[in-house]
Amino acid sequence: MEERNVEKKGSWLTVRPDVKVLDCTIRDGGLCNNYHFTDEFVKGVYNTCVQIGVDYFEIGKIVSKKVMDPKEYGPWNFCEEEDIRRIVGDNNTKLKIAVMADIGRTTKDDVRPKSESVVDMVRVACYIHQIPAALEIVEDAHAKGYETTINIMAISKISGSDLDEALRIVCDSNVDVVYLVDSFGSFYTEQIRELTVKYIKAAEAKGKKVGIHTHNNQQMAYANTVESMILGTSYLDATISGLGRGAGNCAMELLLGFLKNPKFSLLPLLKFIEEQINPLRREIHWGYDIPYMLTGQMNEHPRLAMEFIKKEETDYVKLYNKLMDIDE
Amino acid sequence: MEERNVEKKGSWLTVRPDVKVLDCTIRDGGLCNNYHFTDEFVKGVYNTCVQIGVDYFEIGKIVSKKVMDPKEYGPWNFCEEEDIRRIVGDNNTKLKIAVMADIGRTTKDDVRPKSESVVDMVRVACYIHQIPAALEIVEDAHAKGYETTINIMAISKISGSDLDEALRIVCDSNVDVVYLVDSFGSFYTEQIRELTVKYIKAAEAKGKKVGIHTHNNQQMAYANTVESMILGTSYLDATISGLGRGAGNCAMELLLGFLKNPKFSLLPLLKFIEEQINPLRREIHWGYDIPYMLTGQMNEHPRLAMEFIKKEETDYVKLYNKLMDIDE
Repeated sequence: MEERNVEKKGSWLTVRPDVKVLDCTIRDGGLCNNYHFTDEFVKGVYNTCVQIGVDYFEIGKIVSKKVMDPKEYGPWNFCEEEDIRRIVGDNNTKLKIAVMADIGRTTKDDVRPKSESVVDMVRVACYIHQIPAALEIVEDAHAKGYETTINIMAISKISGSDLDEALRIVCDSNVDVVYLVDSFGSFYTEQIRELTVKYIKAAEAKGKKVGIHTHNNQQMAYANTVESMILGTSYLDATISGLGRGAGNCAMELLLGFLKNPKFSLLPLLKFIEEQINPLRREIHWGYDIPYMLTGQMNEHPRLAMEFIKKEETDYVKLYNKLMDIDE
Repeated sequence: MEERNVEKKGSWLTVRPDVKVLDCTIRDGGLCNNYHFTDEFVKGVYNTCVQIGVDYFEIGKIVSKKVMDPKEYGPWNFCEEEDIRRIVGDNNTKLKIAVMADIGRTTKDDVRPKSESVVDMVRVACYIHQIPAALEIVEDAHAKGYETTINIMAISKISGSDLDEALRIVCDSNVDVVYLVDSFGSFYTEQIRELTVKYIKAAEAKGKKVGIHTHNNQQMAYANTVESMILGTSYLDATISGLGRGAGNCAMELLLGFLKNPKFSLLPLLKFIEEQINPLRREIHWGYDIPYMLTGQMNEHPRLAMEFIKKEETDYVKLYNKLMDIDE
């Protein structure tokens, strides 16, 4: 059955050698605990990524210590070179190391020369109005020899043709990958398909790749990742057991269960979940829950849901009404 | 963007008046506790269904007391008329009452004359080789004046063209709705789309409707329900907070968040979840978990995963290896 006019890039039984999997467990998970992971845990994620055969390991953010306080935030919010090397050594593996720059909190100076770093990829997260600032960091990182991505956030709030214009500008840069980001976990599959086609068209015309990063507010993170991949997205973000802000992300174990490339291996991941992720659930809260579902359905940042859960509130109707007032 | 050759029946912003929502919280949830729900809980689900505007409420199974022991199983495994009326009275509401017949455990005699019953719909669950027995009950129930459905289970294990033949026979009967059932939560969206098209073609040719019943082993229950609906499925099964066997079902709160028909209302459901479902989680285990993910990925019955979780085992690798041996 040929279902679409847009070109399908694979089916559920094929292998797509162009598909790259990026683990962002530490980077997105760090939003749950201000990046206070133990070295043992970070090493565990790194070693697991090596063993399960994924392509990239995002170890954290490269935020300037002038902007955020190292007393409040753990080392993976800053990713000093010596901190990274304490975990990965010289990283003599096939796994590539990524870090994320936050526009407004990271400057070009926070990206050290490639020759001095074990990092392979710099990902730049920005809101649409920050794209010029993001491109400055991308071009600098590209010139320094890094692979680069731009992850435009909160696109579910972008109106009219602004997104087309944003994609045009971004794809005219030297960036390697443009990420489709579902910041609020608000997109349904049909929307993801339409957006994927838009991103693919803009990116392929300029020789770029498209990536996807999802949140699980409506239990769609995995489903939407697979749908987007089928239409040509080739960089797939996932986190172990979905560990990430609020409802979390596409779960790595679900994604590896779908991907048929024999280079991926599920068993070391199951072992890590048993030994390190399940105990962590007693310390940190993440994953699908009714408050996150509500912010996802309403296309809102999960901020209020996170507060609600942190305070152990249970009055969902009150939260619903509070969320309904946001735009009034 | 027109994505498919098959006719789309709606988009995420439209209302489909033909769509019916069936709550099977008690019937599928009863598989978790041998149907030992309190009357208060069953009344709560019934009242919530009335308030949120769904179309059908499946109150349990009509298993013969000669086959299963009422000392072991609660009243909703048998659904005597007086038990049902204790909950719904004469059901002077728009909500229709459904019960499920289990082939091998239910006979025609367990379906009382329509004039003596407050039940509106008899759903018949069967494996493919039981279709003749299922049709006997369907035809009898139809003649007695009930709406009827056939829910063919475990279709992910049916080989070759057997499913086409099954659909042909079923659609030649007087059944009203043919259900696409993902018993093991093993189907990916592409497979659900292909199956939906197959079911719709077979059903529409004979003036039947198609329904869908999913399990959440791979966090696809909701996503697959919506995808199937978009391609024409009009009877949608859901349970409150996904309460159901193993990984549970499509969550009603997610589905109502998607459906745009103003006849549906989310708030009474949120209230019921806060007051009745959350406390129940301390007594019964259900919902997405790694062991169920594994049986889903391997297209197996969740039996071994349910035992694993009941015994509070945590060695996922051992479970994986056990599951791999099943077909050897």
